[in-house]
Amino acid sequence: MSTRVDVATLQQVCSEPLQAVGLSAADAALAAAAILLSETEGAASHGLIRLPLLVARLKAGLVNPHTHLEIVHATTSTALIDAHNSVGLVVSARAMDVAITRARDSGIGAVAVRESSHLGRTGHPAAQAARAGFIGYAASNASPRVVAQAGATPILGNNPWAFAFPTAGEPLVIDMANSVVAAGKIRVAQKEGKEIPLGWALDSDGHPTRDPQQALDGALLCFGGHKGWALSLIVDVLAGVLSGGAFAADPPGVVDDMSRQERNSHFFLALDPTRFLPREQFIARMDALQRALQEAAGPDGRLPGTRSQRLRRQHLAEGLLLSRPARDALDRARRDAGLPPWQPDRT
Amino acid sequence: MSTRVDVATLQQVCSEPLQAVGLSAADAALAAAAILLSETEGAASHGLIRLPLLVARLKAGLVNPHTHLEIVHATTSTALIDAHNSVGLVVSARAMDVAITRARDSGIGAVAVRESSHLGRTGHPAAQAARAGFIGYAASNASPRVVAQAGATPILGNNPWAFAFPTAGEPLVIDMANSVVAAGKIRVAQKEGKEIPLGWALDSDGHPTRDPQQALDGALLCFGGHKGWALSLIVDVLAGVLSGGAFAADPPGVVDDMSRQERNSHFFLALDPTRFLPREQFIARMDALQRALQEAAGPDGRLPGTRSQRLRRQHLAEGLLLSRPARDALDRARRDAGLPPWQPDRT
Repeated sequence: MSTRVDVATLQQVCSEPLQAVGLSAADAALAAAAILLSETEGAASHGLIRLPLLVARLKAGLVNPHTHLEIVHATTSTALIDAHNSVGLVVSARAMDVAITRARDSGIGAVAVRESSHLGRTGHPAAQAARAGFIGYAASNASPRVVAQAGATPILGNNPWAFAFPTAGEPLVIDMANSVVAAGKIRVAQKEGKEIPLGWALDSDGHPTRDPQQALDGALLCFGGHKGWALSLIVDVLAGVLSGGAFAADPPGVVDDMSRQERNSHFFLALDPTRFLPREQFIARMDALQRALQEAAGPDGRLPGTRSQRLRRQHLAEGLLLSRPARDALDRARRDAGLPPWQPDRT
Repeated sequence: MSTRVDVATLQQVCSEPLQAVGLSAADAALAAAAILLSETEGAASHGLIRLPLLVARLKAGLVNPHTHLEIVHATTSTALIDAHNSVGLVVSARAMDVAITRARDSGIGAVAVRESSHLGRTGHPAAQAARAGFIGYAASNASPRVVAQAGATPILGNNPWAFAFPTAGEPLVIDMANSVVAAGKIRVAQKEGKEIPLGWALDSDGHPTRDPQQALDGALLCFGGHKGWALSLIVDVLAGVLSGGAFAADPPGVVDDMSRQERNSHFFLALDPTRFLPREQFIARMDALQRALQEAAGPDGRLPGTRSQRLRRQHLAEGLLLSRPARDALDRARRDAGLPPWQPDRT
């Protein structure tokens, strides 16, 4: 696997197993595109390695292949959606569309979603709004995972959220979860047999730990302690409480727990900047801000999202060099979906 | 000053100097109430010590005593306001009212404000929305102050922001700025002749410093580095860029810089939870969340806002024991406004 693969080819190769386990062609294309967006942006943790997990959950009946976004209640500027356990990657794109439609009509649209599944990266639906010309916000709750300080029990997820702002070029995307480090980084330390620094996590008794396994069995500490923890709390209200879905002590499952549904709740907001300023003026001011930030960032500075956008452009132009885990995941997803292996040389 | 003073008395005593320098009775009452809310909540940095600064700026013509919120453009769910350099404490209350009115009509209201002055604590207008039954968000940009990492130049303010959520009792308020520690904490270290830990601030050359004066002349580091810095960036887009007001390289002044206007930009959002769930259901779920969080927080845990609410209740019931700096500030404000000194024993 030392050859680069065209991203359009991968889009087809990833869609097929999702269609094979029941998704419509359109939904499979949306989900595959989200996975490949992460892969091409260098966010491998949300890339192809997610594909076999999703196929397995769909096969096991833990995720609903027949996307069903039931609009429980809607007004000109809001909507409450029951996603009936559909694929989160699809739900998030469609729910943000609902928010965008409302923002187009009334200047701002807010959509709460309950009974969904893992939505991938919140930066994607947020950027979807920004590419349509709107300020976008997306958030999702997740299984209990984070605490503010030693001695606490996790009752909030590492609830990811993102803002995206339209610019003259690619959207400015600010995309984060609220722990000091991602759980993935602790898993890497575990695989490498290394200790982790104090301040990353607690063991299951609430004590600071250097042991990766104890950390993974315990809780992640939030960046800024109570401040980062409060960011998870905000998401749990906007997504979990407001949607009527799972929140706090009624926690959603995780993608690799094959005993239950995920039950994630989401929240999406789209805001039309042209209700405030003419588009050209808003974009010119965004550009001035970005230039000022870039100048001020210093030699080691980076602006949010610039690395992933550079990788994305490169991969779209030159093709993607699949990592071993990504290739293995793709093979497994196709095999589990009853499809023949993909032969890159023949495409 | 060892006697406790009734808060209603203080409300009058604080309003008088503001009226004496030109504010209407209603505006003076709003501004005094905001200052006393901070004082009674134990947030002395935004309490009475701000009063003489405000009186001085009003007298110097740096803040406009004749509150003028010009609605530049409005729709059923949005408004853009030029505050014509009015008192930020008054602007924020009135602008959030505009957002609340829109949320009442259309489910959600977003208001951007330009050319305002220091608004005090963003938690106040956010809580104002929550007390009216809405989810509230308030944010303001501020003078350039924070950086993500060593080597960077500050171009974003320590832009405060707050969410407030309705509950059965007092709103749940999450209120923060984005630095590791407030500048006030560094000023305390300076007064006490102490060093500050590395990781709080940079000197004016962008190097980490332990020297409080160098830190105050330099930049504050954000909590979580790039993550906290991104929180300031979000506020600068929503408030500064979107309002058409001062942002980034066009920085607002600070309250103790008597050479220029502050030119803060603000952003307010109000969202009606009853467009998603019946009110009783939303409130019951908020209560369940708060109970779960309190149980999980552990013996040392505290929920956001609980300390300030406890102090506020206590001070309303028992009166406020004025600190020496608070009393001095009150005396100075009245003297500078040409009023006789306040004699607490006579009230």
